[in-house]
Amino acid sequence: MDRALSPLISPDMAQVFSPEAHVRGMLAFEAALARAEAQAGIIPRDAADAIGAACRVELFDVPAIFAEGARAGAPTIPFVRELTARIEGDAARYVHWGATSQDAIDTAFMLQARDGLELLTARLLEIAGACAQLAEAHRDTPMAGRTLQQQALPITFGLKAARWLALVTRQIVRLDALRPTLCVQFGGAVGTHASLGDRGLAAMEMIAADLGLAVPELPWHTERDRIAELAAALGVVAGAMGKLAGDALLLAQTEVGEASEGVEPGRGGSSTMPHKQNPVDATFARAASRLALGELPLIFNAMDHEHERAAGPWQVEWEALPRIFLHTAGAVERVLRLASGLVVDAERMRANLEITGGLVLAESLSMTLAARIGRPAAYALVKDACVRVRETGQSLEAVALADPQITAALDASSIHRALDPANYLGTSAEQVDRALAGYQALLATREG
Amino acid sequence: MDRALSPLISPDMAQVFSPEAHVRGMLAFEAALARAEAQAGIIPRDAADAIGAACRVELFDVPAIFAEGARAGAPTIPFVRELTARIEGDAARYVHWGATSQDAIDTAFMLQARDGLELLTARLLEIAGACAQLAEAHRDTPMAGRTLQQQALPITFGLKAARWLALVTRQIVRLDALRPTLCVQFGGAVGTHASLGDRGLAAMEMIAADLGLAVPELPWHTERDRIAELAAALGVVAGAMGKLAGDALLLAQTEVGEASEGVEPGRGGSSTMPHKQNPVDATFARAASRLALGELPLIFNAMDHEHERAAGPWQVEWEALPRIFLHTAGAVERVLRLASGLVVDAERMRANLEITGGLVLAESLSMTLAARIGRPAAYALVKDACVRVRETGQSLEAVALADPQITAALDASSIHRALDPANYLGTSAEQVDRALAGYQALLATREG
Amino acid sequence: MDRALSPLISPDMAQVFSPEAHVRGMLAFEAALARAEAQAGIIPRDAADAIGAACRVELFDVPAIFAEGARAGAPTIPFVRELTARIEGDAARYVHWGATSQDAIDTAFMLQARDGLELLTARLLEIAGACAQLAEAHRDTPMAGRTLQQQALPITFGLKAARWLALVTRQIVRLDALRPTLCVQFGGAVGTHASLGDRGLAAMEMIAADLGLAVPELPWHTERDRIAELAAALGVVAGAMGKLAGDALLLAQTEVGEASEGVEPGRGGSSTMPHKQNPVDATFARAASRLALGELPLIFNAMDHEHERAAGPWQVEWEALPRIFLHTAGAVERVLRLASGLVVDAERMRANLEITGGLVLAESLSMTLAARIGRPAAYALVKDACVRVRETGQSLEAVALADPQITAALDASSIHRALDPANYLGTSAEQVDRALAGYQALLATREG
Amino acid sequence: MDRALSPLISPDMAQVFSPEAHVRGMLAFEAALARAEAQAGIIPRDAADAIGAACRVELFDVPAIFAEGARAGAPTIPFVRELTARIEGDAARYVHWGATSQDAIDTAFMLQARDGLELLTARLLEIAGACAQLAEAHRDTPMAGRTLQQQALPITFGLKAARWLALVTRQIVRLDALRPTLCVQFGGAVGTHASLGDRGLAAMEMIAADLGLAVPELPWHTERDRIAELAAALGVVAGAMGKLAGDALLLAQTEVGEASEGVEPGRGGSSTMPHKQNPVDATFARAASRLALGELPLIFNAMDHEHERAAGPWQVEWEALPRIFLHTAGAVERVLRLASGLVVDAERMRANLEITGGLVLAESLSMTLAARIGRPAAYALVKDACVRVRETGQSLEAVALADPQITAALDASSIHRALDPANYLGTSAEQVDRALAGYQALLATREG
Repeated sequence: MDRALSPLISPDMAQVFSPEAHVRGMLAFEAALARAEAQAGIIPRDAADAIGAACRVELFDVPAIFAEGARAGAPTIPFVRELTARIEGDAARYVHWGATSQDAIDTAFMLQARDGLELLTARLLEIAGACAQLAEAHRDTPMAGRTLQQQALPITFGLKAARWLALVTRQIVRLDALRPTLCVQFGGAVGTHASLGDRGLAAMEMIAADLGLAVPELPWHTERDRIAELAAALGVVAGAMGKLAGDALLLAQTEVGEASEGVEPGRGGSSTMPHKQNPVDATFARAASRLALGELPLIFNAMDHEHERAAGPWQVEWEALPRIFLHTAGAVERVLRLASGLVVDAERMRANLEITGGLVLAESLSMTLAARIGRPAAYALVKDACVRVRETGQSLEAVALADPQITAALDASSIHRALDPANYLGTSAEQVDRALAGYQALLATREG
Repeated sequence: MDRALSPLISPDMAQVFSPEAHVRGMLAFEAALARAEAQAGIIPRDAADAIGAACRVELFDVPAIFAEGARAGAPTIPFVRELTARIEGDAARYVHWGATSQDAIDTAFMLQARDGLELLTARLLEIAGACAQLAEAHRDTPMAGRTLQQQALPITFGLKAARWLALVTRQIVRLDALRPTLCVQFGGAVGTHASLGDRGLAAMEMIAADLGLAVPELPWHTERDRIAELAAALGVVAGAMGKLAGDALLLAQTEVGEASEGVEPGRGGSSTMPHKQNPVDATFARAASRLALGELPLIFNAMDHEHERAAGPWQVEWEALPRIFLHTAGAVERVLRLASGLVVDAERMRANLEITGGLVLAESLSMTLAARIGRPAAYALVKDACVRVRETGQSLEAVALADPQITAALDASSIHRALDPANYLGTSAEQVDRALAGYQALLATREG
Repeated sequence: MDRALSPLISPDMAQVFSPEAHVRGMLAFEAALARAEAQAGIIPRDAADAIGAACRVELFDVPAIFAEGARAGAPTIPFVRELTARIEGDAARYVHWGATSQDAIDTAFMLQARDGLELLTARLLEIAGACAQLAEAHRDTPMAGRTLQQQALPITFGLKAARWLALVTRQIVRLDALRPTLCVQFGGAVGTHASLGDRGLAAMEMIAADLGLAVPELPWHTERDRIAELAAALGVVAGAMGKLAGDALLLAQTEVGEASEGVEPGRGGSSTMPHKQNPVDATFARAASRLALGELPLIFNAMDHEHERAAGPWQVEWEALPRIFLHTAGAVERVLRLASGLVVDAERMRANLEITGGLVLAESLSMTLAARIGRPAAYALVKDACVRVRETGQSLEAVALADPQITAALDASSIHRALDPANYLGTSAEQVDRALAGYQALLATREG
Repeated sequence: MDRALSPLISPDMAQVFSPEAHVRGMLAFEAALARAEAQAGIIPRDAADAIGAACRVELFDVPAIFAEGARAGAPTIPFVRELTARIEGDAARYVHWGATSQDAIDTAFMLQARDGLELLTARLLEIAGACAQLAEAHRDTPMAGRTLQQQALPITFGLKAARWLALVTRQIVRLDALRPTLCVQFGGAVGTHASLGDRGLAAMEMIAADLGLAVPELPWHTERDRIAELAAALGVVAGAMGKLAGDALLLAQTEVGEASEGVEPGRGGSSTMPHKQNPVDATFARAASRLALGELPLIFNAMDHEHERAAGPWQVEWEALPRIFLHTAGAVERVLRLASGLVVDAERMRANLEITGGLVLAESLSMTLAARIGRPAAYALVKDACVRVRETGQSLEAVALADPQITAALDASSIHRALDPANYLGTSAEQVDRALAGYQALLATREG
């Protein structure tokens, strides 16, 4: 699907990675390059001014640049020519002085990545806020904890939301930590700044400062660890979104029905089934998450840049790097809608906890017994009781009360207490508080 | 990069997988569905006619359909509504009768896939033609065969081109064999044709016949082996293109210089280095090949469609399936330009064969000796001679002539003959003929 | 995990891809090579006999061969030396005559692949048998069809099993079709059979015939489309297993409970929760399926073999090709256990069909109404009724009977009929019959 | 290939990820758990002592544990039973108290990961040392810089080594930064520490402190961002190794011959070609790098752990996480051998710089001219001169001296100076110094 039309891509991120934005980034590089070179005495100040004045994306026919670039080998070939053509007199001589195509393109991508990360972070903060609300509101709402798709023990929905919150909080921290990775590219044809004499590294630093990017220790045309690191961080975000969306889908199943996307006109319907309320956002979030992860191996495999400039691996990044932003943001936006509008059914949660006739509290009974008769013996007794529950359809409480070995160790009220979910939630509430505290600390750090 | 602007995407294939083409495909499905249902007596003939008349893509606001589809969960929701709105009177009742979103979307993709395969096959035939010309023209042009990037033994350039030819020929056969995979989708909401009474499977067959698609034994909404098989075949094509492009890049290296892309104004230049003639097509072919292969795991991993309709995996295909066509075709088009315009330097091939001082024919000498003194002894003697070649810089012929153990078994002229590349080409020419014959046979089959 | 100890690997397949089996395959190649060369008059018949006699895996220290191979660059270096050392007299001269390492290794893998495919096919036939039984036994057992994890319309469990059956049947056909892909490798150092004079292609054909492998048109050392095609077919099988396992997991959920793995001592327990019966086989099948699919991109990406022998891509296959067999077979074996032992709860299926208060039959009501008042009006009316069902908790039947617009078009008994699952199963039974017929046809073909 | 026999796996890392090591890790967890619970007053001190005493891997039949685990669903089922069986009296009651299988397994993997990272870091430091030596020794050795496989401009070999050094230095820093990621897992069946009352989080912290692992804010059974982050860091290392190996392969090509792996008996030979010295370590490094990267998508895709314990995704990690360590270490060890033994041919570097007749310094001439007549005019003049060099075979110097437009701006000695590689190395030496300084700083930090 074309970007603007795909449900699996964030429209806002599509702006950040539009062809126009890429050309804007290259222009920012060229202007900063000229300023740096003027400052370093390599080119005249006037030339830098003239170049800077021409570095406005409105002056360029962006599609034409890319169309010609597809023939030429890189969009910078027509781009530099067109930029040069827009500058009068001597100043034109100094356009792109000492730079190479990859300097402009890599730096433009880094500027776009910075914008992209800002957008992602803002949205993740909103998701965290929504999860924090859910965690607080449902701090003590019991529900079934499920392992291997089977009801296992009770948890609270607040705990589930708190884990989502902690997961999202960590992602924001992770993205914030990427700033030093976003660094300028500048080295000229083979990374030696050969045409700048001995002022190459100084110029590199000035361009970085001008653009607000980090300074790499060396030009990095064919050492792509930073790109891989950036992509991996996005991949972790995308994977986290997939986890949230997957949980939401499972909670929304007809037979579970514990949480659902809000009903909204024109959304989630079926073209034939009048009753259907499909989980649209979770579905698209899951798909977008996978699509984002699909870019990851492309970028990692493309670390095999050869010698001083790669023939193929670099060009792979031109597609894969934008796409991992687009789809990650697509997943993030869907999860944001999902988390913000989640309709939680606490009654259904409680009802589902009861459908196993108490089996979901077998461990509680087993541990209570274990305190009296030891873990192995208790486990064996309760396991037998569970078999009887399955065979007879009776509740675990009834079976336990009828088991002389169990009643020898525990009285009826102990058994009853052991089988009440509210008494076997462990650190659920404490964990909610921890996750909320972590989130508040993040907010404080970012505001501070 | 947006599709139209990316150097890694075929513009023609971008037409086949445009949003308009997808809507056109869905309209083709709806029209064929109506005709089949009229024929089966499920809906009135007039209704089918009216529906068919409205199934023209020009009548629809394609971007609006996808924009709304991103909210609704699928483009079919607005699509069916808009189609219905374009039909007057009673006939409108019968639009999309008994079908589900996935019926229309899957069938549309299958129609697009058919067009896409046709396009790919046509281009691959052209590549095969170009390779056949190279194989014929250079049937007897000796060059170094290289293993693990080291010169090993002589081959002919004709043989290399013949292997490319055989590889491409096999791909055409492979794509031709995909026809039964391109089948209609029709089952209704859960694949039971419930609203068609007992005429569901008959209608499925009629739609397939109408559209020229194959008939599946059952509806296949969540059994995606066919999609995976289709993607795999494209992946093999893409991988084959990567192999060809990689060979071309290595041949074009400055230090090898045996073949290069033709020089053309405005192509392959560098923004700073006046002498550069970059291998543009090979570079983009390699990148496009990798991008195509990057879609493969997405599609295979998305075979985990759950129950009767997937929440996520199916939507992954909406992006990944078009993209594997787009990038495979991108690679194919670049390889076509490459193979058609390849400038072969037979002199350089011959010169490179000589730079090892005859080492590249060490096996020839060893095998000639082996006929006299056995393989192990001969191997050991010649291995020693090779060490001396490396140490002294002398030619292998000189070293061999100075080695009494070698000259005890072989006279000077035998040694000289053994070290002439033309005498150690084995079945090179015969293989060229085989590959050409295989190609001719394919052409004959396709024309016949 | 080491192969023998991993729950995600088939132990039988681990035998097929053991180091011993690989050496056995290389020995089979060397023996067949010697026989072919004797037949072609290249080496003495006695030598071929002596070589053949030494080609017994018991004579070799297999771990030592691989250990030295890790230093030497390929196991064939020590392997050929050790084989030569086991042959007395002149015959030793003729070991590995005219062959290269890759000839022996690729051919050995092809022999192993043949054994591996046989094993897989046998197990898939057993799975098909189990699915056929399920399909037959539950031809008319209604259950909820689920799309996007929501109950949509009724199907039968027989239909679900029939779709599994058709999917598995197609895989067997697909694997059977791979036979021509399993071909001998023989070309010598650069694929020219240089040391065999003009008898190279003839020898290649003889070796293939001897080993029962197909004859390639040319040696294929660096054209790896066949390997990719083989891997893709395995990947499709693995993906199919993932689909089945995923469905089984969802059916076994506590809240769904429609089918489960049989209870067996020491299986599926939890280390702490006495009541747990975890879905062991489905879990491992899903994991093994993903692991198999993880090898696919490695193999496809490794199609970039350069020139006449690859430095890296080929060696990737040494790990990835066995692993895709091991994990695919791991998934297949788990699904076999799963399908053979599946405990189906038809009552629970029926009960689950009722939990929506009839919403799952909304389409049925809508289509019935549509026959009277047209699809759009009917859809709108029933959609409103569904909203009321959700708001009031009443059944759809009750709501419909209370809706004057609906009762104006349909009488009470029509409404009742429309809301009985048994009346809205469409072609479910017919599809079961089709899938069974397809399976029977496959059995007939294979036996015939 | 079995781990111990594969050339693509580090034998030392195979020890770290052996089944024994995994059981040892689980035992370390159980012992630390018991100590923590004793300290927290949950179980008796004596019990903790008895449990601790039994936690010795020699006491266990490791293969039997995994064999049974393959049936049971996890190795912890037999493991806990066997551990319990080794403890006499009451203490046996307290084994594994309040823990779940995943607590033991995840924590064991984290301990193994810690050992694995230590091993990797030690080897990377050695690689960095070797690169530092190369960078220093060849600080001023000119060679051709190559972009898109074409000679572009001169660099020094010291610069190339310095870029490798900086790349490897960054990886060490990156792995060092992973320490907070290596954290304990402890939460019990659904992550609530239900059977520990309110002391669950305290116990979690004590276990972490005991084992020297980090404390997570919450148990993280189904939030796998840390695992993905760990895998990504390994992937970046693997990718970096692939880059180095790829450069080495290209430098070792017969036609380039600028650097090669040292000759060593029994290594790099061909089974048929006596002269071959194959690049064994680079080849295996490249293959191992790709294999490591192949695990990355498995791990990222497996972030879709559902609810409180995953059925499938988690089990994928059991294979994929060890393998990414094994193959990354395999690549690292090969690159270490490669970098330590690299034989550099400075003469050949100089000779290769001359094969273009000076074209490789076209930019230098262009920039020198540009200072007089502006960049666009200079570029055009020199581009024409380059065409003449290609057409006539004359050197660029000769062509430039014969061009009146060029000689109007530059005298002969300026032209000569512009065409001397030593005068156009830019910041090469300065960059070498920077990379060395960065490496020294890292060493100082780590020692300090």
